[in-house]
Amino acid sequence: MIKTVEFAENGNVLLIDQRKLPTKEIVNEYSDYKEVAKAIVEMVVRGAPAIGVTAAGGIALGVRAIETADIDVFKREYELILELLGATRPTAVNLFWAIERMRKLVNGNRFASVDDIKQAVYAEARKILAEDIVINEKMGFNGAELIKDGDTILTHCNAGALATAGHYGTALGVIKAAHISGKNIKVFADETRPRLQGANLTAWEMVKEGIDVTLITDSMAGYFMKMGKIDRIVVGSDRIAGNGDVANKIGTYSVAVLAKRHNIPFYVAAPMSTIDFDMPNGDGIPIEERNKDEVLYVMGGKRVTPEGVNIMNPAFDITPNDLVEAIITEKGVARKPFTESLGKLRNS
Amino acid sequence: MIKTVEFAENGNVLLIDQRKLPTKEIVNEYSDYKEVAKAIVEMVVRGAPAIGVTAAGGIALGVRAIETADIDVFKREYELILELLGATRPTAVNLFWAIERMRKLVNGNRFASVDDIKQAVYAEARKILAEDIVINEKMGFNGAELIKDGDTILTHCNAGALATAGHYGTALGVIKAAHISGKNIKVFADETRPRLQGANLTAWEMVKEGIDVTLITDSMAGYFMKMGKIDRIVVGSDRIAGNGDVANKIGTYSVAVLAKRHNIPFYVAAPMSTIDFDMPNGDGIPIEERNKDEVLYVMGGKRVTPEGVNIMNPAFDITPNDLVEAIITEKGVARKPFTESLGKLRNS
Repeated sequence: MIKTVEFAENGNVLLIDQRKLPTKEIVNEYSDYKEVAKAIVEMVVRGAPAIGVTAAGGIALGVRAIETADIDVFKREYELILELLGATRPTAVNLFWAIERMRKLVNGNRFASVDDIKQAVYAEARKILAEDIVINEKMGFNGAELIKDGDTILTHCNAGALATAGHYGTALGVIKAAHISGKNIKVFADETRPRLQGANLTAWEMVKEGIDVTLITDSMAGYFMKMGKIDRIVVGSDRIAGNGDVANKIGTYSVAVLAKRHNIPFYVAAPMSTIDFDMPNGDGIPIEERNKDEVLYVMGGKRVTPEGVNIMNPAFDITPNDLVEAIITEKGVARKPFTESLGKLRNS
Repeated sequence: MIKTVEFAENGNVLLIDQRKLPTKEIVNEYSDYKEVAKAIVEMVVRGAPAIGVTAAGGIALGVRAIETADIDVFKREYELILELLGATRPTAVNLFWAIERMRKLVNGNRFASVDDIKQAVYAEARKILAEDIVINEKMGFNGAELIKDGDTILTHCNAGALATAGHYGTALGVIKAAHISGKNIKVFADETRPRLQGANLTAWEMVKEGIDVTLITDSMAGYFMKMGKIDRIVVGSDRIAGNGDVANKIGTYSVAVLAKRHNIPFYVAAPMSTIDFDMPNGDGIPIEERNKDEVLYVMGGKRVTPEGVNIMNPAFDITPNDLVEAIITEKGVARKPFTESLGKLRNS
């Protein structure tokens, strides 16, 4: 079982260093919430649900260091911790969801003492982590019903155990649940430039699970769809707007457009916490522009382009809802029109 | 002026080593046709027209080493040289076109002596090289008429001077001609995994020409089309079927599908020698499967995926003619229906 994020007995945050995978399995231990924030920025941990869980753990770490017995002073310092963690990455909404949940916990309840708050914050972080694992398992089995025996499933980036607290994952949770259900399936993994999460993380997870996996470059997905090799596509998401527009790793939109041309069902697997009901459509979702070096240098390899070249590095794109066949959540599977079906799941 | 292939006075073949670009500009000199064949296999030189020109030079080198005064003996040895060079790469038809031209030269003419044949072969190779440069310049200016002032043009892989004998190139020839014509244009270059010809070669050529170029990963092309940043697409080709189906670098098909969704004109620039009139459609074009290491290791960088993963590495894909707006050749611009328009160009 892959453990992506763990909280030690003393509250320290443990993260498997995803920049080192698959060649080295190293777990970093953090005792300072600022270091946790840095780990999110530098992508020691990535994947929307995993970022949310990690932020919760970071907040629990942060409150440990607040030295006051005055609840009002505590709340001011607490807010600074929330703000620092909230400034790490802009696209994944689970980060803001986790922070908001922690904010409401403290502001929406009466506590007798700062110590009580600290205990409640720590307990809530552990709850968020435990919930994430249960949610992903449910989501996986909800999605597995859409997978047929003998299917070959394409996925983009890593929406696996490594993108969540651990164990199942979102898109890969669906694949794992189908596999566990005894369905004979194969996986095609886009390598996912620039950071190669498909090659480094998804391929590694599939090998660990004993699922047949074929690695391709992103540019090959269309070729294999045209050859009739792909039956279904499952990806994760960093934020889903209320109308079902999906923000996910750059390149997802291209995969979805290709899927449409070939009439291949395109599924998105994400927990309810990824759905941003305050966002009516995908146009308002901020797209993170990351460091140009990710494009310039490939995994510590040679510089691949000359001086004088502009570089663009948007980390995400928006797939409009018309290209999405179904959104798989822990509460069930939503289909078009998504405004209605997602709303129903929310209230269920 | 970029010289991709040159023939020395003594017949040696000079190739700029494209595996070393853009960091080092090294010219390799070959005195043995078997080494030339190896250079094609290993992609010291690549790009359909460049491969054709190089093969012609290799043949001229090869005949130099045939030690006989008997024309029949010569012809048998000559055929072996043609066969060896013909076995280097399967997709680019210009290779077979150049070999066939050299075959016909020897078999279709009467020669008084082996020395006369050797001289004719050498002269023909030089002619093929010189013609290629003229053809590309013509093609460039034919295509430049389709480009508007202020356009941003996306290209995939490298169809530049480095894909031809030198100087202009095919797709980049169109871009260079538009630039020389005083049109203010910008270029987006897909990096083109797995071998990164966009990052290494196209970006380098554009910087050399003083043309504004932005490098993106292949997975970003759809994003920038959706953002309205791309006005036109121009790519080269390794083989065009009689009906206008286009074989080109893997990923071209995906770009074409995305272009269709966004109503962006998708142009293919290629010399008439790239059109395979014996091939009624793209289904019969052989797709080269290259070494898995190209996907596994990124430009001498780290291994990016674990053991136990299958790898696929098709080097080309087929873009069906319905996605192609125009085919730009040295004889003019062909539009749908291509069977008719390409046939007309052939006979013009």
